[in-house]
Amino acid sequence: MEITAISVPAKLGRFDLFEALQGFDYKDSDILVVSSKFVAMSEGRFVKLDTVRPGAKAKRLAKKFRMDERLAELVLQEADMIVGGIPGFVLAIRKGMMAPNAGIDKSNVPPGHVILYPKKPFASAQKLRQKFLDNGIKLGVILADSRLMPTRRGTTGIAIACAGFEPVEDDRGKRDLFGNTLKVTLRAVADSLATAGVAVMREAAESTPAAVVRGFPVTWTERKLSWKDMAVPARTDIYLRGTGML
Amino acid sequence: MEITAISVPAKLGRFDLFEALQGFDYKDSDILVVSSKFVAMSEGRFVKLDTVRPGAKAKRLAKKFRMDERLAELVLQEADMIVGGIPGFVLAIRKGMMAPNAGIDKSNVPPGHVILYPKKPFASAQKLRQKFLDNGIKLGVILADSRLMPTRRGTTGIAIACAGFEPVEDDRGKRDLFGNTLKVTLRAVADSLATAGVAVMREAAESTPAAVVRGFPVTWTERKLSWKDMAVPARTDIYLRGTGML
Repeated sequence: MEITAISVPAKLGRFDLFEALQGFDYKDSDILVVSSKFVAMSEGRFVKLDTVRPGAKAKRLAKKFRMDERLAELVLQEADMIVGGIPGFVLAIRKGMMAPNAGIDKSNVPPGHVILYPKKPFASAQKLRQKFLDNGIKLGVILADSRLMPTRRGTTGIAIACAGFEPVEDDRGKRDLFGNTLKVTLRAVADSLATAGVAVMREAAESTPAAVVRGFPVTWTERKLSWKDMAVPARTDIYLRGTGML
Repeated sequence: MEITAISVPAKLGRFDLFEALQGFDYKDSDILVVSSKFVAMSEGRFVKLDTVRPGAKAKRLAKKFRMDERLAELVLQEADMIVGGIPGFVLAIRKGMMAPNAGIDKSNVPPGHVILYPKKPFASAQKLRQKFLDNGIKLGVILADSRLMPTRRGTTGIAIACAGFEPVEDDRGKRDLFGNTLKVTLRAVADSLATAGVAVMREAAESTPAAVVRGFPVTWTERKLSWKDMAVPARTDIYLRGTGML
């Protein structure tokens, strides 16, 4: 497997995502990992905080976790479920992903603004894949973000969405060194490649919002993917259930 | 960055780890990712369940989470803290890592046995690195395992230990696209490379307990590393604190 960082000129405001990623010699079967924030920027998902009017619920949340009321309002709008928080942010679940402040971010945005996740990340991934298909290149797409694992220092990566390949592989039936059939069988392919891509992107210089994974065999698919292909409902999650949080 | 899987003949019982990993053209500055279980196997960390005598605490734990009393006893011996559980396993923290059953595993071991983590994983990593140094090759070492992220389907990877390079990089002072100074600045380099390595190892055929990462710039170090370089104490973890679990 080979992973190459893709640098692009810095962008302001909305822009054409496919055009912005040109200048690299893409090949069939590549997996293109793109920063979900770069995709969100291309879609103009900036929000000026001064335009947000916090409701009563947001005000309570902001007080509880000592955060900006307008940010709390946006988190409530974006999240499917609030599972907790510490001063400065709330821990929210949005479409199967646990994320601080529901993924809303202040870095890489103009002062006074925040940026939301792409509105329909799987549609965005599919649209980008289709653009490449229209240009004769059949590749897979991952929208990736950084993510903190419990108890760890520093972030790895996570797939917000993907298109063109199965994000999770089931190794059921494979055997271990002693001929036992494997029990833990699900491999998070999209999350793993997102992590590898994000590592290469972040190690590189600024303005490196994408990376290409070449030579990793995936199961190609044309089917429409959703977050349920990559995440479990909160109520069945072993961490959330295991800690008695839900 | 290029990642190559290292296949070895299947091993039984204790064996010499360095010898087992030969047959690949290692180079200076490579990062060798080795399955923590393969390392544990080389160290003979198998336990025959019939030899384990569960204490009163283990019996209570086993009853609560409907699991083998002998396994519960081993988990208590291995874990620093039990944070919860669901039927079949307990969620434990061991040296800064949250892991089901404290990392004790039944796959890839003979029937009736389990395998524990390497006793001193950082020492094991350093010892392997030293063996390569003695043979004129200066590389980094990661002991890697699979790990489930909260709310996700399928496993990625995690570094149990490492040697020779800084496992976490601080990007403080770097600037984003808009010239803002970055706030979330810690990159989990070791966990990210562990994930990339594990993905390549698991995708490959059986008996592929290692992978080599080439071309990823790390900060080389001679200092003695510990789990505190990669993990945060449970009481300061944003997930555990954020969910009111501790």
